[in-house]
Amino acid sequence: MSLHSIYRDVTKEVNLVDRFLTNHIASEEPTIDAAGQQLLQAGGKRIRPAFVLLASKFGQADRDELVRVAASLELVHMASLVHDDVIDDAELRRGKPTVMQRFDEEVALYSGNYLFGEAVKLIGEIGKPELVQVMVHAMREICEGEIEQIYDQYDWHQSIKRYIKRIERKTAILIEASCHLGAIVANCSKEDTKALRQFGRDIGLAFQIADDLLDFTANRVELGKPVAEDLRHGHKTLPVFYASENPAFFEELVKIQEMPSHEEVAPLLDRLQASDALERTQQTVDLYIKRAIRRLEHLPKSSAKRSLEEVARYVGKRKG
Amino acid sequence: MSLHSIYRDVTKEVNLVDRFLTNHIASEEPTIDAAGQQLLQAGGKRIRPAFVLLASKFGQADRDELVRVAASLELVHMASLVHDDVIDDAELRRGKPTVMQRFDEEVALYSGNYLFGEAVKLIGEIGKPELVQVMVHAMREICEGEIEQIYDQYDWHQSIKRYIKRIERKTAILIEASCHLGAIVANCSKEDTKALRQFGRDIGLAFQIADDLLDFTANRVELGKPVAEDLRHGHKTLPVFYASENPAFFEELVKIQEMPSHEEVAPLLDRLQASDALERTQQTVDLYIKRAIRRLEHLPKSSAKRSLEEVARYVGKRKG
Repeated sequence: MSLHSIYRDVTKEVNLVDRFLTNHIASEEPTIDAAGQQLLQAGGKRIRPAFVLLASKFGQADRDELVRVAASLELVHMASLVHDDVIDDAELRRGKPTVMQRFDEEVALYSGNYLFGEAVKLIGEIGKPELVQVMVHAMREICEGEIEQIYDQYDWHQSIKRYIKRIERKTAILIEASCHLGAIVANCSKEDTKALRQFGRDIGLAFQIADDLLDFTANRVELGKPVAEDLRHGHKTLPVFYASENPAFFEELVKIQEMPSHEEVAPLLDRLQASDALERTQQTVDLYIKRAIRRLEHLPKSSAKRSLEEVARYVGKRKG
Repeated sequence: MSLHSIYRDVTKEVNLVDRFLTNHIASEEPTIDAAGQQLLQAGGKRIRPAFVLLASKFGQADRDELVRVAASLELVHMASLVHDDVIDDAELRRGKPTVMQRFDEEVALYSGNYLFGEAVKLIGEIGKPELVQVMVHAMREICEGEIEQIYDQYDWHQSIKRYIKRIERKTAILIEASCHLGAIVANCSKEDTKALRQFGRDIGLAFQIADDLLDFTANRVELGKPVAEDLRHGHKTLPVFYASENPAFFEELVKIQEMPSHEEVAPLLDRLQASDALERTQQTVDLYIKRAIRRLEHLPKSSAKRSLEEVARYVGKRKG
């Protein structure tokens, strides 16, 4: 099933969110303006707005408020992507940086800040402090997660618990916040709000683990980046945890230095792919998806509930 | 007169703000936590909190709300400083960056984001949407100003109007916001709020122009950075505008390439220092200070009013 058909209940509203964003990320500063519009037009699956909109179906929301909340979550996501560029840019840079190189970096830094600010502005204007609180909490957790990730780089001895905590902050929190905010703005009951929040967190975890799996399984072209990037950059993800249970693998793993060449990691990749690590990772994804769907059990049958279950299954099976 | 004695009306409250910040920027993530505490302990003049507190004296504010607002302005200022490090770090980096170098950069990037988020959280929790709006508006303007600044680098043909607009966004807006937010939280009359806002903007402009002047006049040791840094980095500031009225100076100026050596800019500096550019710049600072003080004319005489006037004069005469 395609995402398009999963979104059937909210297609109109997702389009409203897009239109709203086009009008609202306009900046007087031409570069920020261009950066924002480019990000918007680059598309993306609008998964976070879709979660806001679907979660809101379990209550009653004012449509303008809803569109604002959904738009502001997409903005936070976009801002994070832009800030990732600051780091990636630094990583790719060689030699003495010219003004133009620094220009790109500054544009990325301040455009990201601008989008974060715009996100808070949009959600703040609704005038319900709880919305701002949930949003800002998520933004802070993301920062903490990102720093943890760099801290943990090339630390092959870290625990799985640490990995789960990290991806919870880095990725799951924003999907959790999407479901949570959709429920708040629709005045859902406490119990339903909690269920939707937990659903969001589990989906977010599954989403990131599936992403970490794709780093080892995806066709390079499909994903637009080379295979085993994470491993080469010292990020210990779930497949590597599973493969590390084999002492021979772990012994080779701990020898990995900063950014090894593809040739250097090739034997490790062979071992990993020959093991059951990838299969077990997929099983873990499936477990989180199942748990997510179970969170919704007590919610009344509806088209929105079916859509959420379908998004969940889509996340568990995505190929890119 | 020292800042300490100017602050006499708000010393207690500035200390409360400091204590509040120490307790509230704690993060579970040890690096963010350490970065935040270090920034706090590094001191700084707490000018923005002082403006919030002094402006609030023209009305009646709840002390807890006031401390929150003042603290959140200091956090935005701190976050900006941290993000400046991201850019400066990039500027200083040579050759292939190691994980540790990128680590510093990521820490700076995400710690800055964290502090921005914390600032919005603090002010958002008060539950008055107008406060969040003014704050976020300022944050967006700062981003736009920072990007304009990089855009305008080495553009020796730009207009003074562009320079004023840029420093208004880059620096003045946050001092304007400090006075504005202090007035809002104290429920000042519309007229007084407007006067305090305008006072803040004028002081902010004077502050930045005085800063730009210091780049040419300050003792290296006092300021902790080399003379004419701005010029060497292609930032056209007010003294350069004035000196450029001399065609011989301008002819040499436009030949400046990216980051020239000290020797290359020495003849330009000699010409500038022999001209009336520095004196005229100081006169412009004085004009903004006078205008700022005039903005307060209709406000009743009070100790707070006197303090604001003294801060204004302090800004106009600062030496470092």
